[in-house]
Amino acid sequence: MQKDDAFVPGLEGVIASETAISLLDTEQEQIIIRGHDLIDLSAQKTYADLVYLLLEGTLPSDAERQAVEETLKANYKVPDTVTDILQLLPKGTHPMDGQRTAISVSAGYDTTLDDRSLEANKKRAYDILGQLPAITVNSYRILNQMEPIDPDPTLPYSANFLYMITGKQPTALEASIFDRSLLLYSEHEMPNSTFTSRVIASTHSDMYGALTGAVASLKGDLHGGANEAVMTMLRDAESVDGFVHRLQEKLKRKEKIMGFGHRVYMKKMDPRALKMKESLKQLCDQQGDSLLLDMCEAGEELMAQEKGLYPNLDYYAAPVYWMLGVPIPLYTPIFFSSRTAGLCAHILEQHENNRLFRPRVKYTGERN
Amino acid sequence: MQKDDAFVPGLEGVIASETAISLLDTEQEQIIIRGHDLIDLSAQKTYADLVYLLLEGTLPSDAERQAVEETLKANYKVPDTVTDILQLLPKGTHPMDGQRTAISVSAGYDTTLDDRSLEANKKRAYDILGQLPAITVNSYRILNQMEPIDPDPTLPYSANFLYMITGKQPTALEASIFDRSLLLYSEHEMPNSTFTSRVIASTHSDMYGALTGAVASLKGDLHGGANEAVMTMLRDAESVDGFVHRLQEKLKRKEKIMGFGHRVYMKKMDPRALKMKESLKQLCDQQGDSLLLDMCEAGEELMAQEKGLYPNLDYYAAPVYWMLGVPIPLYTPIFFSSRTAGLCAHILEQHENNRLFRPRVKYTGERN
Repeated sequence: MQKDDAFVPGLEGVIASETAISLLDTEQEQIIIRGHDLIDLSAQKTYADLVYLLLEGTLPSDAERQAVEETLKANYKVPDTVTDILQLLPKGTHPMDGQRTAISVSAGYDTTLDDRSLEANKKRAYDILGQLPAITVNSYRILNQMEPIDPDPTLPYSANFLYMITGKQPTALEASIFDRSLLLYSEHEMPNSTFTSRVIASTHSDMYGALTGAVASLKGDLHGGANEAVMTMLRDAESVDGFVHRLQEKLKRKEKIMGFGHRVYMKKMDPRALKMKESLKQLCDQQGDSLLLDMCEAGEELMAQEKGLYPNLDYYAAPVYWMLGVPIPLYTPIFFSSRTAGLCAHILEQHENNRLFRPRVKYTGERN
Repeated sequence: MQKDDAFVPGLEGVIASETAISLLDTEQEQIIIRGHDLIDLSAQKTYADLVYLLLEGTLPSDAERQAVEETLKANYKVPDTVTDILQLLPKGTHPMDGQRTAISVSAGYDTTLDDRSLEANKKRAYDILGQLPAITVNSYRILNQMEPIDPDPTLPYSANFLYMITGKQPTALEASIFDRSLLLYSEHEMPNSTFTSRVIASTHSDMYGALTGAVASLKGDLHGGANEAVMTMLRDAESVDGFVHRLQEKLKRKEKIMGFGHRVYMKKMDPRALKMKESLKQLCDQQGDSLLLDMCEAGEELMAQEKGLYPNLDYYAAPVYWMLGVPIPLYTPIFFSSRTAGLCAHILEQHENNRLFRPRVKYTGERN
């Protein structure tokens, strides 16, 4: 690659990093995480397994997974001052901005902040992951004039997260479906937020800074907001016909329709979406109400016929979260929480084998 | 550029963006800002002129510059709650992390946050720039157990900024040298922090998020921390011989020496460093003490002989800030404040002609 090479907008197709963490294999239509097929993992493993796999490089033994759960639990509670600061934010603050501020503030509590060793970075990653349910849920609750809720240390990670969101003990099915959604969102190669984290980490900046940038990235509607946009459309449409009509209107107006397609993806359906569709079906069966599944299937069919586009994970995660009782404005903050496992793995990798990101520009301005 | 092209670590030499804002012209050894030579600008213009030039595209008339100063002044004061939140941060919080949190919090006060139009983005940029002296100085003061200081609305931007830092009315020479340092730091093509901002903004995320990521980037010692590292070395060395000895020891140990060289730069001295060296000489003459200038010149000579490396802006900005009475931990936060003018111009440009940054990876892990 020469300095005078053509400019590629958005670095599309440009290799930005070497990584042993993950790959979107578009030829074999697989999402590879540390050598494993993510879809296979989703059938057998939990989010805690993925956290370990991403940070340590191998799947955990039962004892190791148990140790991960204990480490996460030990961090369920955040310092009271973080909650106090959330209380002071203007009430119109966006939930992602509350989450961003809380992560930024948390750096001040890290007594080994200047230590970028692999060991310190790993400990930091587990600590932050443990705190994220409280940061995420209580940021949302406080901004919506609700009392903060205490984590339940008797519950495993995903069950506690869902409990904090809904205020109700989840059923085993609900907890397992929520856990699967976190697992599927946990890592996805080099999307904008992961790239942001690596770019920031490459200055030797710390994990909190890199994650703060990643929340900001995920907030953008071209990246993280899609699951919320999908659910808002489903909710407002109210019926199968209403939903199909809305999609047709959007197609006529040539508007972008969230939840379909992906820059990198396979020409077929995102394999993660298929797994979430299965979960949606389970929830519909359990609750005896198939409306959301029927709407989504009708939309899927229409988009395949009209545009040759297939659902991505956001399209089926949205109605799943709705049926689990998750408020729509929490969809993207939850996506971020889950993705933090992958982000931290990338920050570790960047710090271990670093080269400062510092590209050039094609100057199109005047010369006096 | 093909998908199977070679991987270039750190995207060195890769063109990441088209831009009409600035260019490091390594052939002509010029820093071009909107068509003008930055060094020419530094002889005739103020930081407020650069703010206008960067955001509006042309140099301002006298009336337009006056209007910029008034707009900035109208924003000198930040909401009391931002200060209250800074009061709650753990006292060990890094000054850049305080600045990052304050910018993140500020998003909640923006009543047009979802408006990404050029007009709204420009207004937002002026507002943030106006608030940055108070955010930057009071974050530092509060974290160091000092009372926050009120801005002085009778003073122009740079003079007020320096007044808030030192608590003393600056002389005309001091204010003008500080202004020149801000001007020289205001924009510099595509360093890591600017790239971070554009990557985040490319998701349609907002200016606060993009700037939050940029503070995090600038915090890293491969990017923004160099001016602080230089001054710490000068301060600890205490004499010309002591400084030369320290540099020689570092060279023997093959340690990186901050303040010299630049990935992109000309093989000669950073032209901005020459201007700051002039300012350092003026301050030394005024104060009747040439020690820092003598130390810096001896270090410059040694590094040219031994390594063929030349000073960059940080090398001479550091002793200038010291002689202006700026506490060392504020050097990088001030650099960020100044650079926000350029960052905002890049965020505007990215939003006006956007393509999501989403590169690929070279997977080096296993396949099961």
